[in-house]
Amino acid sequence: MSKQLHLNAFLMSTGHHEASWRLPESDPFANTSVEHYQKLAQLAERGLFDSIFFADSPVLFGDVGRRPAGSLEPTVLLTAIAAVTSRIGLIATASTTYNEPYNLARRFASVDHVSGGRAGWNVVTTAGPEAALNFNLSDQPSHAERYERAAEFLEVAYQLWDSWQDDAAVADKSEGVWAVQERVVPIDHSGRHFQVRGPLNLPRSPQGHPLIVQAGSSEDGKGLAARYAEAVFTAQQTLEDAQDFYQDLKGRAVALGRDPSTIKILPGIVPVIGSTVEEAQRLEHQLDSLIRPEYARLQLARTLRVSPEDLPLDQQLPADLPDEDEIEGAKSRYTLIVTLARRENLTVRELIGRLGGGRGHRTFTGTPEQVADAIQHWFEAGAADGFNVMPPVLPSGLTTFVDEVIPILQARGLFRTSYTGTTLRDHYGLPRPAGRTPSLQEATA
Amino acid sequence: MSKQLHLNAFLMSTGHHEASWRLPESDPFANTSVEHYQKLAQLAERGLFDSIFFADSPVLFGDVGRRPAGSLEPTVLLTAIAAVTSRIGLIATASTTYNEPYNLARRFASVDHVSGGRAGWNVVTTAGPEAALNFNLSDQPSHAERYERAAEFLEVAYQLWDSWQDDAAVADKSEGVWAVQERVVPIDHSGRHFQVRGPLNLPRSPQGHPLIVQAGSSEDGKGLAARYAEAVFTAQQTLEDAQDFYQDLKGRAVALGRDPSTIKILPGIVPVIGSTVEEAQRLEHQLDSLIRPEYARLQLARTLRVSPEDLPLDQQLPADLPDEDEIEGAKSRYTLIVTLARRENLTVRELIGRLGGGRGHRTFTGTPEQVADAIQHWFEAGAADGFNVMPPVLPSGLTTFVDEVIPILQARGLFRTSYTGTTLRDHYGLPRPAGRTPSLQEATA
Ligand SMILES: Cc1cc2nc3c(=O)[nH]c(=O)nc-3n(C[C@H](O)[C@H](O)[C@H](O)COP(=O)(O)O)c2cc1C
Ligand SMILES: Cc1cc2nc3c(=O)[nH]c(=O)nc-3n(C[C@H](O)[C@H](O)[C@H](O)COP(=O)(O)O)c2cc1C
Repeated sequence: MSKQLHLNAFLMSTGHHEASWRLPESDPFANTSVEHYQKLAQLAERGLFDSIFFADSPVLFGDVGRRPAGSLEPTVLLTAIAAVTSRIGLIATASTTYNEPYNLARRFASVDHVSGGRAGWNVVTTAGPEAALNFNLSDQPSHAERYERAAEFLEVAYQLWDSWQDDAAVADKSEGVWAVQERVVPIDHSGRHFQVRGPLNLPRSPQGHPLIVQAGSSEDGKGLAARYAEAVFTAQQTLEDAQDFYQDLKGRAVALGRDPSTIKILPGIVPVIGSTVEEAQRLEHQLDSLIRPEYARLQLARTLRVSPEDLPLDQQLPADLPDEDEIEGAKSRYTLIVTLARRENLTVRELIGRLGGGRGHRTFTGTPEQVADAIQHWFEAGAADGFNVMPPVLPSGLTTFVDEVIPILQARGLFRTSYTGTTLRDHYGLPRPAGRTPSLQEATA
Repeated sequence: MSKQLHLNAFLMSTGHHEASWRLPESDPFANTSVEHYQKLAQLAERGLFDSIFFADSPVLFGDVGRRPAGSLEPTVLLTAIAAVTSRIGLIATASTTYNEPYNLARRFASVDHVSGGRAGWNVVTTAGPEAALNFNLSDQPSHAERYERAAEFLEVAYQLWDSWQDDAAVADKSEGVWAVQERVVPIDHSGRHFQVRGPLNLPRSPQGHPLIVQAGSSEDGKGLAARYAEAVFTAQQTLEDAQDFYQDLKGRAVALGRDPSTIKILPGIVPVIGSTVEEAQRLEHQLDSLIRPEYARLQLARTLRVSPEDLPLDQQLPADLPDEDEIEGAKSRYTLIVTLARRENLTVRELIGRLGGGRGHRTFTGTPEQVADAIQHWFEAGAADGFNVMPPVLPSGLTTFVDEVIPILQARGLFRTSYTGTTLRDHYGLPRPAGRTPSLQEATA
């Protein structure tokens, strides 16, 4: 069997294209509909996807006129989905900047228990000053500070997840001993950001701990990913950029003593699919024509930290934009957008069109065969271990992908024809992490 | 139709009796089993209970030898249960001391959306120094400080829940306007504990906001309940105490301008049921004989803030225990235990037996008819609007209650014979709270 590719379905209300909600087929209240997401997850499971994924940020971001705004908190959404699926992995985003490690480690361990070992956590640091204002702060902590906190947050979480040995609970009914006290150990963590005594108030979960996913592509983001991530989401516009990123990240992991196959790299792809090229292009144009550029320009101005008036729709970006160094928000997103605009000499209007489909992710428009080709090409050219599939319209874009693209990938021997395991780690081919070894006392007893 | 009583099923692993897990029938790993809780919820729904309820604390409390320890985080458990039920209310405990209002308001609003309006939040301040050590603190904030924070926490939460007008999302596809910006309003809260800008990143939920439940019975606890609670859980050992508590709390609510019928008071009851009195007593004795008193004594010593050696099993409590005033943990629980021991001149061993069933809640042992009588008596004597039913063994204790006690209460006209509404508020007979009125600008436009 040739090397297998991994597919994650990135789910978002009516789809990733910002105007998708305006299509006649779309339910504009899909963003708060659990049934919508349950059906999408069942569809992705029918397609044998490794996992589904929800983004998140603890702030209402941007203009509520533009598109369905507000979303269900993803961990509570995941367990509602777990109840109606049995195999597919379930990944939620949560912020290390605006949560406490004890609460979040406990919640993800709970999702792992509830789902029978299908939980994943997309660890993000939450860019932008807006979220900070919901958490007693007047501005976001600096980019460096956020990533430093994220690393310590993860160190605490790992210790909590391992604070129960796998064999702690013995459930000895006749002696009346439910668990062995010495196998449930305080962590006594004391660091720059956190003092946490532990142990966790939950036995070790089916996967040991949730799959760790990371999605920041700045220098600090790649550093965090290289050390901790088991899967990485990333936005890459060109094959070359994607190859560079892939090499870079695998190299960093190796330098830290990791086996590079234990970190799966999944660039985003927004597949705009038609049964002919013309049909696919018609769909793309229909969607783009429904964008209201004034909303998108507002958002672009926010990302670039300029005022909207500095971005006339039919001119190119101003020449004097700041360097990535000066950006305290989402550094890699910033650079991607500026690079894309400059490389292709795009006007603001054109840039908005290019970002409307996938906010900087690669849009690919074509037939199912061409989409499969595009996936295979990057996969075999060392740019990806799989893809973060971002349908422009939901559910129809996912239905088409499952019914028409997946069978081609299967026929080419690139993708599974049935699930072979039951946990998210099984799907990604990653081992269950060992927990703590039995305490010395016991070992010598 | 006579006044209807309300029933909440308080679910906890293998049951409320601390030795229940040792019975042959019990699954000792029920505490981490979503299927266990899904079945219990379906059973309670078959019995037409108003709601189910999970306690919680962000700390591993006590000895893991004693009984199944650690529990699934209740909000993620609730949505997994929502997926397999359709009517029953879903109440989770969460701490105002160890959470941030933005995150928690968002999570409960999400549960309300996911469940179609069935969410409730048991607002607790989390007693005891242990939890504090998991959250960067060396001791708990004082009792007064915790309750002050709780009140401000709730004020922030209400504002966030109301930050979207009910009619904010218009989903105008042809104009490309999803929501009206002026109907989604920042809250700009700035208080002693919290600065929160808002608005919430989620449209207003089916119930407007989750049902607010409160479970602290100290002076401060009653103050918080009188102002905010829509349902109140409480531990009361005697009819007189329960009547006093009922009068007191309703009176406080009236003094604050509330209609007393909008605050439902639900004392706990641990029904130990047998088809004859002897059978019920046999079950009780069987359970009590399975208690290992050394564990329970340790816990009692912690609650009383003395050392275990100060509590010889066959002597009464030491004479020189502190006053409630000096307790910074769970004040009302402390007083209840000491009062019970002194009133009945119990030895430590006897006290442990009495607390083993329901940790201070009223245990009632008898036939289904007698249990129904006990419920009716307190209900009609002005001691309760309903009960927090705490089966000593699960699932069997709940099955018996549903199959044998509920039909008696129904035959007496005291309890519903079908659900008449779809939301948790409907079941408790409480109106959906009005949200913000449309902004002045709009009203005059
Ligand atoms: C597919 C994908 C999904 C992402 N989802 C989120 C998200 O849900 N929440 C979030 O704060 N950041 C998310 N990010 C990361 C941000 O885009 C940004 O990269 C991150 O906040 C930090 O960025 P930096 O390391 O590039 O500065 C995602 C990134 C990618 C590629
Ligand atoms: C039925 C019931 C359930 C309760 N559940 C919890 C709980 O899950 N977590 C918690 O911290 N306190 C819970 N409490 C409240 C505590 O027992 C205690 O009363 C509270 O922490 C503050 O107490 P005070 O106001 O009496 O000092 C519950 C109380 C009752 C009566």
